[in-house]
Amino acid sequence: MAIPSMTAEDRLAKIDVRLPDAPTPFGAYVPAVQTGNLLFLSGMLATSGHAATVVGVVGQNLDVNDGRRAANVAALNVLALAKKELGSLNRVSRVVRLGVYVAATPAFSEHPKVADAASELLRDVLGEETVSSRLVFGVASLPLGSPVELEVILEVKA
Amino acid sequence: MAIPSMTAEDRLAKIDVRLPDAPTPFGAYVPAVQTGNLLFLSGMLATSGHAATVVGVVGQNLDVNDGRRAANVAALNVLALAKKELGSLNRVSRVVRLGVYVAATPAFSEHPKVADAASELLRDVLGEETVSSRLVFGVASLPLGSPVELEVILEVKA
Amino acid sequence: MAIPSMTAEDRLAKIDVRLPDAPTPFGAYVPAVQTGNLLFLSGMLATSGHAATVVGVVGQNLDVNDGRRAANVAALNVLALAKKELGSLNRVSRVVRLGVYVAATPAFSEHPKVADAASELLRDVLGEETVSSRLVFGVASLPLGSPVELEVILEVKA
Repeated sequence: MAIPSMTAEDRLAKIDVRLPDAPTPFGAYVPAVQTGNLLFLSGMLATSGHAATVVGVVGQNLDVNDGRRAANVAALNVLALAKKELGSLNRVSRVVRLGVYVAATPAFSEHPKVADAASELLRDVLGEETVSSRLVFGVASLPLGSPVELEVILEVKA
Repeated sequence: MAIPSMTAEDRLAKIDVRLPDAPTPFGAYVPAVQTGNLLFLSGMLATSGHAATVVGVVGQNLDVNDGRRAANVAALNVLALAKKELGSLNRVSRVVRLGVYVAATPAFSEHPKVADAASELLRDVLGEETVSSRLVFGVASLPLGSPVELEVILEVKA
Repeated sequence: MAIPSMTAEDRLAKIDVRLPDAPTPFGAYVPAVQTGNLLFLSGMLATSGHAATVVGVVGQNLDVNDGRRAANVAALNVLALAKKELGSLNRVSRVVRLGVYVAATPAFSEHPKVADAASELLRDVLGEETVSSRLVFGVASLPLGSPVELEVILEVKA
């Protein structure tokens, strides 16, 4: 049960999740760009350092639960990057957009179940009042062979 | 021919389109998020309730006209959701971005024809002066097997 | 080596790149929409006029270098369109988001190398201080058979 008076940093400590190091770019881009009070994060993959934690396509060599685990890893990278950029996750006022792109076969149709693993972690840490709009689809392939990539636009407090 | 003095709600009545019930989420997200004067809608599919009105891949079991019908259904869902969120479609000042994602084969190349079915409905209801920038591509698969998903960012009047 | 005191238009002249005519829509949309100080460009393909300069799928009939050449052509279209919309590239203060969508096989994993060709051209012309956040994935197929499509959101000076 969410306790409204808790902050995102309180919740992060409470659910005892250890954030990874924030991912660094592997190309000619930056991790995030802020314009006004919107912070656009670069695409976050299921990676540790510059390696994928799992490789494959959901509906082919991976199933829904594999996809959910990858979405969870990518969402941890989102939190790590947001914390690094903002100093504190308490500065996130809203997840404006969450895009969940799943490397999937043409016959796959359960993308929302994979996406929910990312949505649930972000909600459990950042709070119910920050819950995002969402865009989910199946792509042909992703960088490094990651089965999931997340697009995140955050609204931040000054 | 568009009559500039008509409002979006006038045009909706005139072309005698009955809007469906606004789609509700099937996952841990919300239908739309407003930040400043931008309203980000969650991805809209060719659905009625939580079921796809048509299932398949354009260029495989579906052709361009099937794709256009699906894009029209998804665009009706966009209008229904925008009306529910804003109270009136007259509050839409601009469609900033329309993304049209078509479940398509690698050989398919007529995505713009499919996308135009969504663009045309939005233009006919919301007005020429609201016409969007657009992003269109073919994806591997979509939630529920829908052949089309729409991403919409609206600029809204206070 | 970047000379900070040079403007984007200076750099464009110096690297002696001739911009193509800005792409025009082939459907019911507009080339770009500005809201506040954000300019959303429609998806830019590897096209000259309304024809693709190269057709295919990376990892199938095209390799990474073919993809890079296509990304470079699409990025030139981005610059041409931005210049047409804004009057001068000196008005670009930031590339907020660069999306690079590569028509690719399920087994392809080197999307960042393709994407860097677009990122590098934008950086070399618009300047290090404008470098974008980035989103990259492999799609099933693209309009006209183009192997690359670019999504660009610019922050512009008044």
